[in-house]
Amino acid sequence: MTEQSFEGWMKSIQVEMEVALVKLLPSVTQKPARLHEAMHYAVLDGGKRVRPLLVHAAGALFDADVAELARAAAAVEMIHAYSLVHDDMPCMDDDALRRGKPTVHVKYDEACALLVGDALQAQAFEILAEGGLDAARQLAMLRLLAKASGSFGMCGGQAIDLASVGLTLSLQELEQMHTLKTGALLRVSVLLGALAGKALSENEIAALDQYSSAIGLAFQVVDDVLDATADSATLGKTAGKDAADNKPTYVSILGLEQSQALAEKLRTDAYRALEQFGDKARRLRELADLIVQRKA
Amino acid sequence: MTEQSFEGWMKSIQVEMEVALVKLLPSVTQKPARLHEAMHYAVLDGGKRVRPLLVHAAGALFDADVAELARAAAAVEMIHAYSLVHDDMPCMDDDALRRGKPTVHVKYDEACALLVGDALQAQAFEILAEGGLDAARQLAMLRLLAKASGSFGMCGGQAIDLASVGLTLSLQELEQMHTLKTGALLRVSVLLGALAGKALSENEIAALDQYSSAIGLAFQVVDDVLDATADSATLGKTAGKDAADNKPTYVSILGLEQSQALAEKLRTDAYRALEQFGDKARRLRELADLIVQRKA
Repeated sequence: MTEQSFEGWMKSIQVEMEVALVKLLPSVTQKPARLHEAMHYAVLDGGKRVRPLLVHAAGALFDADVAELARAAAAVEMIHAYSLVHDDMPCMDDDALRRGKPTVHVKYDEACALLVGDALQAQAFEILAEGGLDAARQLAMLRLLAKASGSFGMCGGQAIDLASVGLTLSLQELEQMHTLKTGALLRVSVLLGALAGKALSENEIAALDQYSSAIGLAFQVVDDVLDATADSATLGKTAGKDAADNKPTYVSILGLEQSQALAEKLRTDAYRALEQFGDKARRLRELADLIVQRKA
Repeated sequence: MTEQSFEGWMKSIQVEMEVALVKLLPSVTQKPARLHEAMHYAVLDGGKRVRPLLVHAAGALFDADVAELARAAAAVEMIHAYSLVHDDMPCMDDDALRRGKPTVHVKYDEACALLVGDALQAQAFEILAEGGLDAARQLAMLRLLAKASGSFGMCGGQAIDLASVGLTLSLQELEQMHTLKTGALLRVSVLLGALAGKALSENEIAALDQYSSAIGLAFQVVDDVLDATADSATLGKTAGKDAADNKPTYVSILGLEQSQALAEKLRTDAYRALEQFGDKARRLRELADLIVQRKA
């Protein structure tokens, strides 16, 4: 495994993930078929699968079972996919384009998009509850995923984000918002992957949290940089939307150059957090590189 | 406990439930405060708490720990509450009144209502994952709740309901829809309550499922009867809405008299299913009575 190039590793995880997601989604041959079709539409053929990659990369730290990693990764990815479906709806960000395709409420309808998100969230918890690890560890993973998804995690971050449109946020407030909105799910990806390998010591959790914080913020800083500099075709979503919506971003607060420097600093922080894990952390380091260097 | 009147028992569960829900919801003193306030608004001071009553009544079959029952009941009730918040939204049933109060999207806004529902679902799974039963049983409860909530349960039923507006459903199709939309959550209430007491035999599960099917359908039949006969003030929601929306109902298919006779027959079925449990099933029998005889 460690001989494989990062590109090759990433591609193989992405392909395996697609297979796992199809298997773990409700079949489109079962009723209600339109809902199940829309769930597939929302989840499959989607993006770089950063969260599943993090689950697998963290699982490599402790040689976790690959099938259990695929299950945890699918659960996190379904939470992520549901949040995108709901965030794109007219009452939230009102976005018509996602990953170069019409968003779910455009392709289907709003009621369907609402239900797709709701059903995907339930499906995520069901999948994780059906894992084959010892019950206590499986329960710990469920607790972490639920907390990362709820009002002290992703949903809370989205609420703060909505409330901050048109406001001037401080850098600290912006960071808090993203720590919840995006960071919580990235963090839980790392933790679930590691937990699938073994029960974690406090020291290990602290190191993984440092890594997650660094890449979580880097992810957002780079997002803001790309939103300000890339075009819609490259991004696969509407570019320049944050500025148009008058949303505070790292670029609007720090400027472009300082934002890029911050992303580089965060990559260094991420590397430092992984030192104790040695060569087994290779994929996590490479993912930090990916997050900072990505062009879309 | 068994000396207590049904009214007294019900009242005490309802009061205890309110306390448990406040304790198990995120505090409104914590950020994001508006989201947390809206979550409280959606869940507290809400209705008869039929599902929590079922959890406690089923728990009495096997002398389950009351704190564990309260936790399971709160989890089910949060799923129920989130589904009401989302169902009331403009893109679904577009209802402005719920339990005599403005619905969440009217009182707050649509984006907030969407997030309230999403966060409540996560909260439900978090609460249940934090229970104190042995991990294997707790996991089994989580699997049941997730399945009952998702596309083969409540969300699936809602999808079929939306797709059936303006269509002529057969009695069997109508039953299938309600079995998912309302029945799945009532069934899981009974199963979680019983499971909080002990691991269940197949025979016990079959009996409880018969009971749940009967009261689940009775619940819907009576809902349809009330929607056709009661006024909005008594119901605490907009009466006559199904007819106005051209939705198929038991009353529109069977007529009023036959619908009332069906509800009575279902009560008898529910009683019969409980025979093996003897006196310990007293509260479950009384809840079947409540469901059939309720006026709102």
